[in-house]
Amino acid sequence: MSSLKVAMIGHGFMGAAHSQSWRSAHRVFDLPADPQMAVLVGRDSSKAAAQAAQWGWESSSASWQEVVERDDIDIIDIVTPGASHAQIAIAALEAGKHVLCEKPLANTVEEAELMAEAAERAAVRGVRTMVGFTYRRVPAASFMRQLIAQGVLGEIQQVRASYRQDWLVDSTAPLSWRLQQDQAGSGALGDIGAHAIDLVQFTTGLPIQAVSGVLQTVTEHRPLADGSGFGQVSVDDLALFNGRLGNGALASFEASRVATGRKNALSIEVSGSRGALAFDLEELNSLQYYNREDQQDRQGFRNILVTEPVHPYLSGWWPAGHMLGYEHGFSHQVKDLVESISGPTPAHSTFAEGLQVQRVLDAVARSAGNESAWTQVARESRIHLA
Amino acid sequence: MSSLKVAMIGHGFMGAAHSQSWRSAHRVFDLPADPQMAVLVGRDSSKAAAQAAQWGWESSSASWQEVVERDDIDIIDIVTPGASHAQIAIAALEAGKHVLCEKPLANTVEEAELMAEAAERAAVRGVRTMVGFTYRRVPAASFMRQLIAQGVLGEIQQVRASYRQDWLVDSTAPLSWRLQQDQAGSGALGDIGAHAIDLVQFTTGLPIQAVSGVLQTVTEHRPLADGSGFGQVSVDDLALFNGRLGNGALASFEASRVATGRKNALSIEVSGSRGALAFDLEELNSLQYYNREDQQDRQGFRNILVTEPVHPYLSGWWPAGHMLGYEHGFSHQVKDLVESISGPTPAHSTFAEGLQVQRVLDAVARSAGNESAWTQVARESRIHLA
Amino acid sequence: MSSLKVAMIGHGFMGAAHSQSWRSAHRVFDLPADPQMAVLVGRDSSKAAAQAAQWGWESSSASWQEVVERDDIDIIDIVTPGASHAQIAIAALEAGKHVLCEKPLANTVEEAELMAEAAERAAVRGVRTMVGFTYRRVPAASFMRQLIAQGVLGEIQQVRASYRQDWLVDSTAPLSWRLQQDQAGSGALGDIGAHAIDLVQFTTGLPIQAVSGVLQTVTEHRPLADGSGFGQVSVDDLALFNGRLGNGALASFEASRVATGRKNALSIEVSGSRGALAFDLEELNSLQYYNREDQQDRQGFRNILVTEPVHPYLSGWWPAGHMLGYEHGFSHQVKDLVESISGPTPAHSTFAEGLQVQRVLDAVARSAGNESAWTQVARESRIHLA
Amino acid sequence: MSSLKVAMIGHGFMGAAHSQSWRSAHRVFDLPADPQMAVLVGRDSSKAAAQAAQWGWESSSASWQEVVERDDIDIIDIVTPGASHAQIAIAALEAGKHVLCEKPLANTVEEAELMAEAAERAAVRGVRTMVGFTYRRVPAASFMRQLIAQGVLGEIQQVRASYRQDWLVDSTAPLSWRLQQDQAGSGALGDIGAHAIDLVQFTTGLPIQAVSGVLQTVTEHRPLADGSGFGQVSVDDLALFNGRLGNGALASFEASRVATGRKNALSIEVSGSRGALAFDLEELNSLQYYNREDQQDRQGFRNILVTEPVHPYLSGWWPAGHMLGYEHGFSHQVKDLVESISGPTPAHSTFAEGLQVQRVLDAVARSAGNESAWTQVARESRIHLA
Repeated sequence: MSSLKVAMIGHGFMGAAHSQSWRSAHRVFDLPADPQMAVLVGRDSSKAAAQAAQWGWESSSASWQEVVERDDIDIIDIVTPGASHAQIAIAALEAGKHVLCEKPLANTVEEAELMAEAAERAAVRGVRTMVGFTYRRVPAASFMRQLIAQGVLGEIQQVRASYRQDWLVDSTAPLSWRLQQDQAGSGALGDIGAHAIDLVQFTTGLPIQAVSGVLQTVTEHRPLADGSGFGQVSVDDLALFNGRLGNGALASFEASRVATGRKNALSIEVSGSRGALAFDLEELNSLQYYNREDQQDRQGFRNILVTEPVHPYLSGWWPAGHMLGYEHGFSHQVKDLVESISGPTPAHSTFAEGLQVQRVLDAVARSAGNESAWTQVARESRIHLA
Repeated sequence: MSSLKVAMIGHGFMGAAHSQSWRSAHRVFDLPADPQMAVLVGRDSSKAAAQAAQWGWESSSASWQEVVERDDIDIIDIVTPGASHAQIAIAALEAGKHVLCEKPLANTVEEAELMAEAAERAAVRGVRTMVGFTYRRVPAASFMRQLIAQGVLGEIQQVRASYRQDWLVDSTAPLSWRLQQDQAGSGALGDIGAHAIDLVQFTTGLPIQAVSGVLQTVTEHRPLADGSGFGQVSVDDLALFNGRLGNGALASFEASRVATGRKNALSIEVSGSRGALAFDLEELNSLQYYNREDQQDRQGFRNILVTEPVHPYLSGWWPAGHMLGYEHGFSHQVKDLVESISGPTPAHSTFAEGLQVQRVLDAVARSAGNESAWTQVARESRIHLA
Repeated sequence: MSSLKVAMIGHGFMGAAHSQSWRSAHRVFDLPADPQMAVLVGRDSSKAAAQAAQWGWESSSASWQEVVERDDIDIIDIVTPGASHAQIAIAALEAGKHVLCEKPLANTVEEAELMAEAAERAAVRGVRTMVGFTYRRVPAASFMRQLIAQGVLGEIQQVRASYRQDWLVDSTAPLSWRLQQDQAGSGALGDIGAHAIDLVQFTTGLPIQAVSGVLQTVTEHRPLADGSGFGQVSVDDLALFNGRLGNGALASFEASRVATGRKNALSIEVSGSRGALAFDLEELNSLQYYNREDQQDRQGFRNILVTEPVHPYLSGWWPAGHMLGYEHGFSHQVKDLVESISGPTPAHSTFAEGLQVQRVLDAVARSAGNESAWTQVARESRIHLA
Repeated sequence: MSSLKVAMIGHGFMGAAHSQSWRSAHRVFDLPADPQMAVLVGRDSSKAAAQAAQWGWESSSASWQEVVERDDIDIIDIVTPGASHAQIAIAALEAGKHVLCEKPLANTVEEAELMAEAAERAAVRGVRTMVGFTYRRVPAASFMRQLIAQGVLGEIQQVRASYRQDWLVDSTAPLSWRLQQDQAGSGALGDIGAHAIDLVQFTTGLPIQAVSGVLQTVTEHRPLADGSGFGQVSVDDLALFNGRLGNGALASFEASRVATGRKNALSIEVSGSRGALAFDLEELNSLQYYNREDQQDRQGFRNILVTEPVHPYLSGWWPAGHMLGYEHGFSHQVKDLVESISGPTPAHSTFAEGLQVQRVLDAVARSAGNESAWTQVARESRIHLA
């Protein structure tokens, strides 16, 4: 059994989830190679060392540059904030490392394009890239894509997607870095709207080609963290937009941090000529399916528990009917990445796909700045989209 | 006990629902006057007579003009298609009759304005008008308005509303008059989107001041009813739009006739600084309530069964816990109209409010024709809004 | 069009629901004869007269004996408390009147047997009887029976039923007549457990042949209504029992007035070799259906909205997707009774069926008094069960 | 940081879940000692070695007897079938090892008593025992216990619990060892009914003192696995029973393997004088709470997402609103066991508690064999219950 040495750059909350998956995936699935948790990288040496010990990484380092150049490292896993993604990822790709990068791919389209180009150059040499759109790999979402690809919905006629949270309803919540554009790049739109965009494109197989949208900052001034007064919020709390898909169908989107009572509610419903499918992350083991071809008097949305061995990714886990949670998408991500590294083809959610999401986000922001006028998503790309 | 003689003009499906309510309301509620089902009017004498017998109207007539002029008639109830509303309603108002008119108030803003002006003139003489937005009078929706008016939600920060049906998913459904603009005026937008608009404005007490929207006809050609080929659909199957409310908050709207598997799904969710409320017509006896002031570890959406004597309109019906249905909103409409006729003030959903909804619909259509650019809802009215 | 003159004996809450249905059924459905609301009977003349005026009965009377003997009366509708059912019903049947009687058929098995015998004798002369198990006639419940009769569930292997309310959680609720055995006959068992028993037998077509059960009075002493102290509760607050059905399958039952937060929650789930069906009165327009013969990866409980024209009783009401409520079962009851009077065969829920439910209740009480030992439901009847 | 060396005896499905938790718990929670996955024991050396490699155990052994005697081993984790639990656990306890044992504690009350006695003797020396009732440690279930212990429900008046699966609806499913009494001990009752019993006693803090129940084998003959014909099923497919709790309240139970369409549906609802709580394993991140002290017009079951840092066990995992799954209960079990080993007191779910569940199961079986007559749960124990 060969192994793949992994270095993880960064160690925030995402680092915890990634560590759990690097630790688990090959214990649960029969993988062609075992990931080896080699190095954890963090700017503060002692913090990085402590976190490495906690999470089970063999060593730690304060220099991602050194780690990226190490001959023995196979995979670079980037879980830092978006502003540093481009620099690290491009260096890693040029050093021939496979790269897993958290979403969003970058804070700007320009950086994302550079990353996608680097990925395209590296791909020639068999180097794999993956963006961390883990919700794709929740079994119910993967199964939704499978069913749609099989034609179960017929022609897709309408899509609705929303991602709703409520942590900014509290007007006394402080002005964190996430609420400042220079650091976060974007607000609800980029943080959670990106997941909704990706899930629509992934499950339907249809790209968003144009958008019309509006952004709003509900609470414009918030207390500074140091108690010295109030500061200006410079990102959106709420994004509402419509998109036109590749087949002409309309899709509606909502990304909200002010949806009182909604904690992590990512929902998508796809309506087609033969049926409909609906998924909600707050019931992540279920998929709702309506079949127009059921006998007429007994049609209805079926609540399919996506927990059977016939469903995607389930064979590795527990017996039928046992629930998975949020973190399992990360293990499936590791599984797919490792298998693609050992196999002939890339797995889905490549950097090229991450760039496409970035372009949609950018078009929404431009539309919002132009009275919600319909705005084309850039396509004239220097790189090939999968 | 005095009585109020009613004449109903028209006898389609809405006539059946109205008849049930004219027959029931004073049996269930103690009303200041009993409605008397005096005349049913229909263009075809024999059909009108048959329908009058079926529904329990004392007589029938083929001439609304004659009926409107009759001294003994107190209330004119208009359930004809939208194109004839203005002519009948204005004549009735000028003859001093109270008028209940099905929604939409008219097929155009211009007609709606004339009707609202006639209503304003007649109001001086104590004449009442009401538009049939019956969903307001579903107890859960009425209770939602009560709670919001009490401040239970604090500042309203976001609203979402949708009305989804699926009868146009079937691409072989024929080109009925409802799908032709000259007869129907509008498609999903005016037919069901109007209910969503009204419900948002009614429950929040906030008018929609500007909109950005898009309309789509998913199936553009449909078989002619006579089998002679295909014809062009000239109204929308799907409307997506955003609105800005009077306090600056954003509201998203969807009206769809292609939402596969959704039969009559009118939903609204209002998010505020102190809590949230959500209502869904497919569970019309329930109201979802999230209270941010509940103890922190036990916050969650409560499923309130709005079937207790303390809830609006419930005292007249069955014991606690017994479900009401679609038609009861119509009985509540009769109750409110009769009470307002006998009382000092108009009931809500006056013609002025119907006009306001018409103006929102018009603004959406104009925005859709202008690349979804934000469009003001007309306010410079010659009449007084309540 | 012929008409059928109806006299209603009693005018409590059930009288209101019955009046609504006598008033509505022939307006909604094409019936072979129109019910005519001829007389309302109540012991107190002035109250009866007032109630008759309120509900639309043509006249009132203080003597059920006189009314029962009137030649012009066709149907006697009994909505008095259970203790008087036998006397009135038997007199009416002997006078050749069709009889609709509220459930429970009687307070004792003995009385119920006499009533069923009288019904059997009268049936020879074409006289119809019906017990008011209206939940059978909620469309979703009727549809459930249809599907099971068609074999959609295969062999029935397990049934669960419960009817839960919570009005006795409040320990300060007074000792009303409903909580005293001599007046009410029984507590939760007879009042609401009877509905669960009937619904199981009706939907499955299988009689309960033996039972094992326990009864409990959670709050044994309650304040007297006159404030003079406390009295002993002599009926059950909670009944739990299991039954063996005609095919050997087990069914579990719960009837509770102390199920905190449950208002009127009648639920039934039938599990069979080919599928399962579940109904819940709190979502009375829905039926849950699981089909084991659906493709394996997409099996799940379907939420069928029983609001389409293809579903039982729906053709008379509103367009697809519009909700019915509690009271509509009563209109369906009138429809079925009137049609059976004009037709060749009785409608279901005859007095013989009411007697069978009474025998099950009696067997449960006997089992509860005998350490929950299994107890046969009496079958050696002098009358023929349908 | 000290470590605790673990040996796991057995390596079926439960071994996979336990391995995931031994691997994860100290990475997620700050534990006083780190578990070290030292030895995996299995009768077949090569299979045990392969499984050890797959799951990350440092070594393997074919002899549990040798491993139990090793000085360096601290914890014995037993995941073998029930028949071998007593022998292994008692030997391990006598050797001074802490023991975690899968449920059911044993196949008979007699063996369970011997195990509980051995545990009691070992406890004097600081040795800990734990039975694997992991559903207790699903956060929503733990939170339910907390709330009830705080008095949130007031006096408990009624409990309902059920555990429903459907894998035996298929009458062609073969006669596996699980369906033969000599190997499995019991059917649905012991396998899944045990979880329902434990959860009721755990959440309410009330022991079951007497029971009345019935067992049924729906499909009595099943094909032999070797295709040589049919054999007799000797365990129950379905168990229905009622129990009387320590405070006199009634609890109803169902354990079914023939509940068509229900996959792993463990539900419990506790009704009290001040409120109610309901938990369903198929929505394991939620807890339903009804508060009778909410304002009267806005009472309803709240859907509490038990995914906030204030909730039990959540602080170690992901940010608010992120879902956990089935396996996390096992990690919480490891956390509690390790903390109790390093701390002054045992954690809950000791062998004494496992014995109590066994006694309830035994009483149900005896009642079922005696016409469902009420049967006392044995209490005259030689050991002390916690």
